[in-house]
Amino acid sequence: MHTSQGLDAYGPAAGEVLEALRGRVLFSVVAGSTATSTIPGISIAGPSPEATVLTPTLDAEYLLAGRPLTLSVVPVSPEGLPTPAVISRAIVANRLGLPLLVVDAGCKQVPRVPHAALPSRMPGGRIDKEPALPRGTARSLYMEARLLGSSLARGLDALVAGETIPGGTTVAAAVMEALGYRALGRVSSSSASNPHGLRERVVRAALSRLHGAGDVFEAVDEIGDPVHVSLAGLAAGAVEAGAWAVLAGGTQMAAVLAILSRAEPKALERVAVATTPWIIRDGTADLLGLVRDIAPRVAVLAARFSMAGSRHAGLRAYEKGYVKEGVGAGGALVLGAARGLPAREMLEAVEEEYERITRGAGDAGSRGQA
Amino acid sequence: MHTSQGLDAYGPAAGEVLEALRGRVLFSVVAGSTATSTIPGISIAGPSPEATVLTPTLDAEYLLAGRPLTLSVVPVSPEGLPTPAVISRAIVANRLGLPLLVVDAGCKQVPRVPHAALPSRMPGGRIDKEPALPRGTARSLYMEARLLGSSLARGLDALVAGETIPGGTTVAAAVMEALGYRALGRVSSSSASNPHGLRERVVRAALSRLHGAGDVFEAVDEIGDPVHVSLAGLAAGAVEAGAWAVLAGGTQMAAVLAILSRAEPKALERVAVATTPWIIRDGTADLLGLVRDIAPRVAVLAARFSMAGSRHAGLRAYEKGYVKEGVGAGGALVLGAARGLPAREMLEAVEEEYERITRGAGDAGSRGQA
Repeated sequence: MHTSQGLDAYGPAAGEVLEALRGRVLFSVVAGSTATSTIPGISIAGPSPEATVLTPTLDAEYLLAGRPLTLSVVPVSPEGLPTPAVISRAIVANRLGLPLLVVDAGCKQVPRVPHAALPSRMPGGRIDKEPALPRGTARSLYMEARLLGSSLARGLDALVAGETIPGGTTVAAAVMEALGYRALGRVSSSSASNPHGLRERVVRAALSRLHGAGDVFEAVDEIGDPVHVSLAGLAAGAVEAGAWAVLAGGTQMAAVLAILSRAEPKALERVAVATTPWIIRDGTADLLGLVRDIAPRVAVLAARFSMAGSRHAGLRAYEKGYVKEGVGAGGALVLGAARGLPAREMLEAVEEEYERITRGAGDAGSRGQA
Repeated sequence: MHTSQGLDAYGPAAGEVLEALRGRVLFSVVAGSTATSTIPGISIAGPSPEATVLTPTLDAEYLLAGRPLTLSVVPVSPEGLPTPAVISRAIVANRLGLPLLVVDAGCKQVPRVPHAALPSRMPGGRIDKEPALPRGTARSLYMEARLLGSSLARGLDALVAGETIPGGTTVAAAVMEALGYRALGRVSSSSASNPHGLRERVVRAALSRLHGAGDVFEAVDEIGDPVHVSLAGLAAGAVEAGAWAVLAGGTQMAAVLAILSRAEPKALERVAVATTPWIIRDGTADLLGLVRDIAPRVAVLAARFSMAGSRHAGLRAYEKGYVKEGVGAGGALVLGAARGLPAREMLEAVEEEYERITRGAGDAGSRGQA
């Protein structure tokens, strides 16, 4: 482990990645839905299992416009827990003023903000019962996202790419297992209690439909989702354009590495993962082990950051294992640290943004105090 | 007139714009269709009046992917005249390696390449007979494009924004006349013989439906199109983010200035126009006069560039008044000149790209020799 100015870095090349993150950067978030997230117990990223399919749309809208537009809601749970997009917006938009782009890879509801659209975008199916995507879709999404990455990342030092897809860790486990990695029991959850048993049943049901090793894109069509394969393509395109691709997320990003290791292993030389300290500390999962198994030369970076001292219970809950990561939050924190924002100032930025969105909304912030 | 290294600049602040064009730049093209371009004689940007509605889609696909995808065609007329996108691709992508983004403001057919989508996008109506857009659409497009511009242009020195919308000069004349400027007889045409008479009949029919001065967005809803108002919003957003907005086009961009002068006049302080030498030289039109009438402090830049010495008749035709501008071609040439590409090297780049696309396609290049 290498440490420097507010960051922990695991693996080689971390110094070069940090240098890139201080240069010309575009912060992007790939959004999509799956029916997998509607299986009760799989995702808490929404007020009900059915409602989780709207979360990527609301996250995208909030990130760009400052509030969800498709539904008039505050992006905070009844307990006062905010979407991790609050961290991304507070640091990337409000403090660092970096360019932002949402990429729609398959939102159930089209975001009502301008966004990059992949022509083959579509929500994923429920992988325990049906194919995730029509045959050929994963390859198309990969190629389209690759073209977007190579077109946009010219002249950039780093393209940071986060995700918003509820149920994503379950699908990520299925993808990694399908590609030959041990992943069950090693992915994180947005819940404080990781539903490993339920997830294993879903993944086993999905894997039972796969016959033989097969092509990586065929595996994603069957048991994946539209977001991970699009992130892989976006990263490969950014690398082709000469930039670093920094995957901003938790254990889902190990599935993106697994897809890349099959589709374009050479690109991995310029790929890194940026995650939150809550993912690194998650005793129910093993991001560092997954990355070591799949792409041992890929660096993992995490900011030294805590919300334990926050005046808001909804933010302190992140320290108890809730939410943990999403919408590029870990990448936002790493960008903040790499560009010299002290952890205290990042917390202030998050608190300000949290107060802005909960103000006049029945004070969800204090309702959550307990 | 101010001249420097391969460029002519008209108006103040040109030096500052050139400096910005040498810095961090994103090259974007806003695409959309209208039924106005299907009026016989209005546009030659397609093999038939009806087919012009597909041109923006094919241009967007060619610009990003190197060939049209929606139709298997070579983007060259039967006479060997290439789309002006050949100039943009040759210089911006092949030579300068700058980032590229297509924005769909209302293509009749969705481009099969990744692109930024404005949520309110839709093709425009035929303005001599019907409203261009449902009431409220122009304002929505402006605000959405503005959010896209302000999100993407952070950290940029210049956002260059071109257009692809057949029939655009006719609609531009209607918009400028509606906003109180004399524009009939002063806009260019992609044809060597400018159809001023036909255009005037279309514009007068459109204007006859407008009652009173009214709001700029209401005027666009009635007699405009989806592209000009989106370009205005994109420019205002880029300026808000601290960048220069460089409108890359011909007399259509005067309509964009007219919209901005009503919607956000302050933004005009950081807006410039980059066009082709063929527009400057067009004796049937008056870009410099239009800009002087509408926004006298806005600089107009044009590269000193000629295709008279090309070995391809299809390229030499540009010197005879055909095509003239489109898909950001003038902006591409200005970027090339600003960044030190000699005119000779730009012509080589265009010829290489022209040869690549006509190769194996019945040699449209030599078919056009005459």
